[in-house]
Amino acid sequence: MTRVSDPTGLHRVLSPAGVLPQAAERLDTDPELGPDEVRIDVTRLNLDAASFRQLFEKHGGDGHAVRAEVLDIVRNRGKMHNPVTGSGGMLTGTVAEVGRDASVGLEVGDQVTTLVSLTLTPLVITDDLAGWDGLSEQVPCQGYAILFGRTIAAKIPTDLPTPLALAVMDVCGAPALTARVVARYVDRGVTPTVCVIGGAGKSGSLSLAAAAKAGAGRTIAVVPVQREVDLLADKGLADVVTLADARDPVALSAAVIDAGGPADVTVVCVDVPGCEGGAILSTAQGGTVIFFSMATSFTAAALGAEGLASDVTMLVGNGYVPGHADYAMQLLRDSEGVRRLFERRL
Amino acid sequence: MTRVSDPTGLHRVLSPAGVLPQAAERLDTDPELGPDEVRIDVTRLNLDAASFRQLFEKHGGDGHAVRAEVLDIVRNRGKMHNPVTGSGGMLTGTVAEVGRDASVGLEVGDQVTTLVSLTLTPLVITDDLAGWDGLSEQVPCQGYAILFGRTIAAKIPTDLPTPLALAVMDVCGAPALTARVVARYVDRGVTPTVCVIGGAGKSGSLSLAAAAKAGAGRTIAVVPVQREVDLLADKGLADVVTLADARDPVALSAAVIDAGGPADVTVVCVDVPGCEGGAILSTAQGGTVIFFSMATSFTAAALGAEGLASDVTMLVGNGYVPGHADYAMQLLRDSEGVRRLFERRL
Repeated sequence: MTRVSDPTGLHRVLSPAGVLPQAAERLDTDPELGPDEVRIDVTRLNLDAASFRQLFEKHGGDGHAVRAEVLDIVRNRGKMHNPVTGSGGMLTGTVAEVGRDASVGLEVGDQVTTLVSLTLTPLVITDDLAGWDGLSEQVPCQGYAILFGRTIAAKIPTDLPTPLALAVMDVCGAPALTARVVARYVDRGVTPTVCVIGGAGKSGSLSLAAAAKAGAGRTIAVVPVQREVDLLADKGLADVVTLADARDPVALSAAVIDAGGPADVTVVCVDVPGCEGGAILSTAQGGTVIFFSMATSFTAAALGAEGLASDVTMLVGNGYVPGHADYAMQLLRDSEGVRRLFERRL
Repeated sequence: MTRVSDPTGLHRVLSPAGVLPQAAERLDTDPELGPDEVRIDVTRLNLDAASFRQLFEKHGGDGHAVRAEVLDIVRNRGKMHNPVTGSGGMLTGTVAEVGRDASVGLEVGDQVTTLVSLTLTPLVITDDLAGWDGLSEQVPCQGYAILFGRTIAAKIPTDLPTPLALAVMDVCGAPALTARVVARYVDRGVTPTVCVIGGAGKSGSLSLAAAAKAGAGRTIAVVPVQREVDLLADKGLADVVTLADARDPVALSAAVIDAGGPADVTVVCVDVPGCEGGAILSTAQGGTVIFFSMATSFTAAALGAEGLASDVTMLVGNGYVPGHADYAMQLLRDSEGVRRLFERRL
């Protein structure tokens, strides 16, 4: 442990010089720890939905090709950072070594999951992902990863199966931020109508539960296919479940209006590009759109709202809100509907 | 005037079907108006700074090549929508014809500027941009453009030179949104420290003036070169002017801290990629970052904040806030410093 380390991981950036690890092209994966670093023996990766989708579609569903590209990316970049989508995912594993000055509250042997993106986490894969078929976001994996002084990780709850806990933590920023935004409306005496686009997915279902708990009035879930309408029908997560293609702004906004909108708060949780205009059109003047999708285009959102003369507040879905992991885990424990949706996906 | 028209301009989208004009690959530039449309005889385009910079750098400063590519884009897409940056700019001209049901309050002969992006405005150029050297964002131009029912445009003030008014209106969303965010802090009894990255530019200088007017405490301007430090020195726009490369997160945040930060509100007004991490690091926990730069990466912002465990609210800089054009114009009239900065650029 002789390395000098920076809490943001700057010392691990190989190129380009001076950028933060998330923006880096390549990271240093040296297993020797800096004083505030932690090394994890990785057991599983959970690829970001937008990233997995892009790889899956690029390779026409060929799992071998998807696996080969993931291995290539990690080997070349020292991290799982999809160069097309810009997104990563997260990992789970066991704490193998803790630097002498590490302050993250972890001990050797702890089962943990990272709460930061794989796009900034030094990662080495040692098993060629032999246990993965390349056909799902959940990747059994042997190897190691490095956490920086400022990298947050959470111990995996002992009362929940690990894959379930991991799936929840992957999206735990969304319900926490949704709850905060809804609570601000409630504090001002407004009972907001909340629309979640992609309401049957992981971040979507948790965001619906969070909105209701934070005091939302009507909740509207938008889903793209009848199968998801049926899935949500008996889960008690939304007042109205409606079918619309989020990429079709006219169809989407019409469906939301029919369901009791426009929304005061619109939460975008789908992993396909091109949903910005429809989300804006579905939101009332003075309302808020929270973009959690990694497929969101900044310019499409900014110029789209301007082009529609829409006075909406648009938030970049920050994946970090203090206490977000515990909050999301409690939502899952409290909501039978959310839990059943999550278990179905595993 | 026999066309059926939609206030968002959907009827002008040639491909792909069903998207809004901003997201479209190609727009229909037929000069015949729908009932709520307006046709403008264009006299000048004002290219978005990020777009012009990209074109200028791609062609190594060759103005002929820049001009040829702008003509190509407009001919192929029916709008000035830079496919790399996703941004456009705006235009000025004279109202040539007003549809019988148009409700935008314009009359034939009015001198106007559009307040929406060129990325959604049908445009035909008829003079091959013969009067433009390809070396500046201000493009003398002959041709016509179409405004939709919901497209906002503003009459050009008669007390200001047209190029000056156009330059102000191009960025008028930034000061209005900055003022709104600062005012929310003030309403809660907080006198926020406001840092504007790119404080010597158009949106930056207006945002500094807006922040002060809205009740900011300390204002910090960050600029990339000594020339801009000197430029701002006698303008009275910021309490502190500091020199830093916004793409270097460590240098930027150190400079902001030295200047009295971290900031409660950070406003990003530079047109280069890679400023997300530094802006987040320069902002206090619980603070707000407003991204106005069209070079902002959504994923870099979202994953960057998460990776730093930064509890910051990140706003997509919506170019529309009610009354934004009048507000910005008044800031210019009231601030000798802003006006001198703008006049210098023309």
